[in-house]
Amino acid sequence: MKSIFYSRFFILLPWILIVIIVIDIDTKRSSVRNTASFYFSRLGNVQQRQDARTTRTSSVSSSSRAGSNITSPPVIFAITPTYSRAVQKAELTRLANTFRQVPQFHWIVVEDSNSHTELVSRFLARSGLRYTHLNVFTPRRFKRKGMPRATEQRNAALGWLRGHRTSKDKGVVFFADDDNTYSLELFEEMRSTRRVAVWPVGLVGGRRYERPLVENGKVVGWYTGWRADRPFAIDMAGFAVNLQVILSNPRAMFKRRGAKPGMQESDFLKQITKVEDLEPKARNCTQVLVWHTRTEKVILGNEPKLQQDSLYIEV
Amino acid sequence: MKSIFYSRFFILLPWILIVIIVIDIDTKRSSVRNTASFYFSRLGNVQQRQDARTTRTSSVSSSSRAGSNITSPPVIFAITPTYSRAVQKAELTRLANTFRQVPQFHWIVVEDSNSHTELVSRFLARSGLRYTHLNVFTPRRFKRKGMPRATEQRNAALGWLRGHRTSKDKGVVFFADDDNTYSLELFEEMRSTRRVAVWPVGLVGGRRYERPLVENGKVVGWYTGWRADRPFAIDMAGFAVNLQVILSNPRAMFKRRGAKPGMQESDFLKQITKVEDLEPKARNCTQVLVWHTRTEKVILGNEPKLQQDSLYIEV
Repeated sequence: MKSIFYSRFFILLPWILIVIIVIDIDTKRSSVRNTASFYFSRLGNVQQRQDARTTRTSSVSSSSRAGSNITSPPVIFAITPTYSRAVQKAELTRLANTFRQVPQFHWIVVEDSNSHTELVSRFLARSGLRYTHLNVFTPRRFKRKGMPRATEQRNAALGWLRGHRTSKDKGVVFFADDDNTYSLELFEEMRSTRRVAVWPVGLVGGRRYERPLVENGKVVGWYTGWRADRPFAIDMAGFAVNLQVILSNPRAMFKRRGAKPGMQESDFLKQITKVEDLEPKARNCTQVLVWHTRTEKVILGNEPKLQQDSLYIEV
Repeated sequence: MKSIFYSRFFILLPWILIVIIVIDIDTKRSSVRNTASFYFSRLGNVQQRQDARTTRTSSVSSSSRAGSNITSPPVIFAITPTYSRAVQKAELTRLANTFRQVPQFHWIVVEDSNSHTELVSRFLARSGLRYTHLNVFTPRRFKRKGMPRATEQRNAALGWLRGHRTSKDKGVVFFADDDNTYSLELFEEMRSTRRVAVWPVGLVGGRRYERPLVENGKVVGWYTGWRADRPFAIDMAGFAVNLQVILSNPRAMFKRRGAKPGMQESDFLKQITKVEDLEPKARNCTQVLVWHTRTEKVILGNEPKLQQDSLYIEV
C-alpha cells in the first residue's frame, strides 16, 4: 500500500511542478511584454536608434525603410539645411535632442559645402538618429543679402527623396531649419498630413505669431504682419507635405530665379496645392507648437589670432 | 520488463521536462532583463516620467526622492532662472526636450516674478519632468545694465535644496541657464561630481571656448579671453557642485553686494572650494559639451497695437 502511494506521488509530483512552472512563466512573461510595449509606445525612438546603427547613411536598406510598412505610422522626413559657423554644433545638438524623441523619424541634413564636413559627419554618426547626410555648395553669387537662403540644399533633399522613395513609402516631409524651436507635439500633428498641412508659427514676421485663419475646417486667410498679399503667407516652419505629393510632382522645387526672400514658401506651395485644399492642424491653427527663434551671431573678439591653446578642441 | 521500462520512462520524462523548462526560462528571462536594462540605461527618463506624474511640485514624497536610494545614481538638480519674454516658452521647450532624456533628473525652475505665472505652471505640468517651481522677484533697482543677473533666483533654489534635502540624499547641483545648449553627455560627466567639478564651455568670453587648464589631473589655470585674473575664470555653465557641499556650507550663496557681472561664479565658488580641489571632467577639460548660446531678442515691430486676432494664443 505504502509503495503504491509513493510511486503515485513521485509520478504526480513532477507533473504538478510542470504545471506550476508553466503558469508562472506565462504570467511573468506577459507582464514583461506589457512593460516593454509601454516603453515602446512612449519612446518609439528605441527602434529607430537600433535602425540608425545598422543603416547610417543614404543606403536604402530594408530596416531604414521600416516606416514603409503598412501598419506603422508614416515616417517624418525633416529636411535641415545647415552651414559652418560658430554655433553650428550647438544648434545641431539641440535639434538632435528634440528629434531623438520623435518616433519614425528620418533626418535629412544638407550642408552648404563642397563635401561632407568632419564636424557634421561625426555629429550625425553619434546622434543615435536615422539620417541621410547630403551636401551642395551655394554659389557665391547667391550669398548676398536679400537673396533667399538654402534653396539648393532644400532641393537636394527633395531630389534625394524622389530618388530613394517610391509610391509604396508612407511619409511626411517637413522643412526644419536648424535654429528654430520645435515641440514634440508638432510632429504628432503633422504625421497625419494627407496632402499639405499648415499650422501657426511663433515669433515670426515681427509678430508674436503668424497663423492661417480657419473657417469650417478650411483655410480662408492669413493672420500676418508682413506682406499679407502672399498667396501662402506662411513661414517655412509652418507646413508639411505628404511624401506622395512630393513624388507625384517631380518638378516642384524651390526657385532661385525671380524668387524673393519670404516668397520661397509661396512659390513652392503653389506648385503643389491650393489654399482651399490646405489641412489645418494644431486645433484649427490656434496653437503655437513651433517657434522661429534666431540664435545670436557669436562675436569672437577675444579669440587669439594665433592658436594659443595647446591643442585643437572642436566646438 | 516492458512495464518496468514504461514506469521508469514516465517517472523520468517529467523531470527531464522540468529541467528543459527551467533552462529555457533562465535564458529567456536574462535576455529580457538585458534588453530592459539597455533601454533603461539609454532612456532612464521613463522612470522619472512616472515619478513626475505622482509628485509634480515641491512636495517631498518618497517617490520624488527615489534618487536618494543608495543603489541609484545621484539626482542631477538643474537650477534654471527664467523670466517672462517673447522667447521664454520656446527656450523652456528646447530645454525640456533635452532634460527629458537625462535619467534621475530634477528641474528647479525659478521665475523672476511675484507669483507663479500661468505659462510656466502649465508648461511644467505638461513637461513630463520631475520639477520644483519657485519664484522670487528681482527688485527693480537691481535690473540695470552692469548688474549681475538671476542672483535672487539661484539663491532661492539653493534655499529650497537646503530645506528639502538632507545628508542622506545623493545629488549634484548644476546652474542651467535657459538659453544655453546642453549635450546629454554633459550630464553623465557631472553625475560623478564628488565636491566641485569643472569642464570647458563653448562660445563664451568672446572666444570659441573657455576651459580650465589641467596638469596631472589638477586644474592649474584658465584658458580664457576675458579677465584671466578671476580666481575661478569660469562661466555659470562650467561647473557642478555635489549636493552635500551645498548642504554643508549653508551660508554659501550668490552675492549682490559688491558683485560684478562675470564675478558671480568666482564669488560663489571661493565660498565652497579651492582651485586645487576642482575635479576636471570631459576628458581633462578637452571636450566642449555645453555652449553659451544666446537667443536673439525678438522684434515685434509688426505686432498690432490693439489685439487684431479673434482669440488669444499663447506663444
